[in-house]
Amino acid sequence: MNKINRFQNLVSDEILAVENLMRKQAEGYNPDLQAALDHLILSGGKRIRPNITLLVGKLLNGDPDRLIILSAAIELLHTATLVHDDLIDGALLRRGIPTLNASWTPAATILTGDFIFAKAAKLAAETDSIPVMKIFANTLSTIVNGEIAQLFTSHCDSNLDKYYERIYAKTASLFETSTTAAALISNATQNQIKHLQEFGYELGIAFQIIDDILDFTSNQEKLGKPVGGDLRLGLITLPAILYFEQYPNDHQTKEFFKHNCNPTLETLEILVENIRNSSAINLSFEKANSHIDLCINALHNLPECYERDALEELACFVTQRTN
Amino acid sequence: MNKINRFQNLVSDEILAVENLMRKQAEGYNPDLQAALDHLILSGGKRIRPNITLLVGKLLNGDPDRLIILSAAIELLHTATLVHDDLIDGALLRRGIPTLNASWTPAATILTGDFIFAKAAKLAAETDSIPVMKIFANTLSTIVNGEIAQLFTSHCDSNLDKYYERIYAKTASLFETSTTAAALISNATQNQIKHLQEFGYELGIAFQIIDDILDFTSNQEKLGKPVGGDLRLGLITLPAILYFEQYPNDHQTKEFFKHNCNPTLETLEILVENIRNSSAINLSFEKANSHIDLCINALHNLPECYERDALEELACFVTQRTN
Repeated sequence: MNKINRFQNLVSDEILAVENLMRKQAEGYNPDLQAALDHLILSGGKRIRPNITLLVGKLLNGDPDRLIILSAAIELLHTATLVHDDLIDGALLRRGIPTLNASWTPAATILTGDFIFAKAAKLAAETDSIPVMKIFANTLSTIVNGEIAQLFTSHCDSNLDKYYERIYAKTASLFETSTTAAALISNATQNQIKHLQEFGYELGIAFQIIDDILDFTSNQEKLGKPVGGDLRLGLITLPAILYFEQYPNDHQTKEFFKHNCNPTLETLEILVENIRNSSAINLSFEKANSHIDLCINALHNLPECYERDALEELACFVTQRTN
Repeated sequence: MNKINRFQNLVSDEILAVENLMRKQAEGYNPDLQAALDHLILSGGKRIRPNITLLVGKLLNGDPDRLIILSAAIELLHTATLVHDDLIDGALLRRGIPTLNASWTPAATILTGDFIFAKAAKLAAETDSIPVMKIFANTLSTIVNGEIAQLFTSHCDSNLDKYYERIYAKTASLFETSTTAAALISNATQNQIKHLQEFGYELGIAFQIIDDILDFTSNQEKLGKPVGGDLRLGLITLPAILYFEQYPNDHQTKEFFKHNCNPTLETLEILVENIRNSSAINLSFEKANSHIDLCINALHNLPECYERDALEELACFVTQRTN
């Protein structure tokens, strides 16, 4: 069992309330929808976005009920995007638990995702903040546009700028929304909003870099999916970008690009193993840590308090996590 | 070419503005998204929902800019649901024009639908009305829940109450939202909102009944899809319900239910032809007309003016249309 960290402890009651509110969204609708939502909520995750939202709101003495509603909206938005992502990727496991599309038809999976989007939007509206609604809708556009760009542009592109664009769309945009929206409904000053937005952005970037590192360094049991899964899909993340920069003439590197990122399984296995054991992993950790430094710097512009300490701890946890 | 009706004439400039605003939503995003949205907007449709929204708003002296934004939000919500529906049904034509999924992968089609949902939500937020946002999100839940219910409950059920539930979710809910939301942002009285909600509800029910009649009585060229398409998918609509009530012992009726709504093609062809030529068609028209009467009665609670006349004309057009 994981030890309970301070950042979780400070808002553990609120997290339960968020999960209850999420589950309640299917009440009165089709029973299969209720079952699907229960399954998705039980397969859980770290609830990192609600944790951030709640801590930022608490730091600013925001209204607890509205913060719970906002956190549920954000986590449901995240959940809906995962439901459609897993279907698109044909992923059968997430966090070691069967995905919805593993047992449901594509039609039912698409519609369940749509329903969760609708309920996320409903909860966002219930924060009674027009600016929050706007940020929320824009973030969904950013996330989806990022995925579409990934579908339509060549997969086989080892480019650092595009990688940052991609992980902003995929992860940092919703982290940024978590902090910014919490600040907005808690009557933060413009300056506080600016620093908290920066905190969310940098934390999200670091979080995704660590995710991309763990995709190489973890094991199948912890990941709940095969190691090197991104590269197997032709998706080049930071560790691979840095490895290819360092070893452009490596046999496997050449094979990989010669076959448009879709080489033989043997080449892939060796490549994943080489990347795992290369300095690209440490270099990637250094990049993640530099973003964590920036995120903590941004945080230090806010008054010191328990919640700020907890957010700092959460930021450190992001780089130290192993799954 | 269709003759231009008064209800279209009164708001034709605004309809152009709505279409421009819809098209603008993909600006700055992936070029393939822009192309997809352009294709969807050009394949058009009658823009009946924006027409209703704009006329109701004009009748109440609502702010023209906010009404254009609201109309674009509603039409985009409608468009997004069609994009996912056509993918789920495997429909290759809509209004005689290839659907998105006819040429795009399921992944791209799912994500384009999601993007359009996001932009619909963004525009709904730009009406700066929290109640509108809430209605909007709830309507999306209702629509999607209706589709999920259709997936999970037995298709082969000839039941009038369930038919009404289904066409409320599918069509009348968004018609109701069009009138109610237009009234809300135009500072209508509670009484006006109530009558306009009823107008939208009854009009939507009638509209869908007519759609379901045309599915039998029209021809493939006008429909842009095969005649009797619903029944071929095992979906029993009003004309079929009334036919089965009248001819429970008909050979084809028995064959149809014996094979769980999935009989031989020959049985289907005869059944579609029998329903086309039966009194069930006229009975269905009578039902639709009774809803149009209710919708016009509701409208007559509002002060007489050009816009009210145009809405009445629009309601009559709904029952007289041939595609």
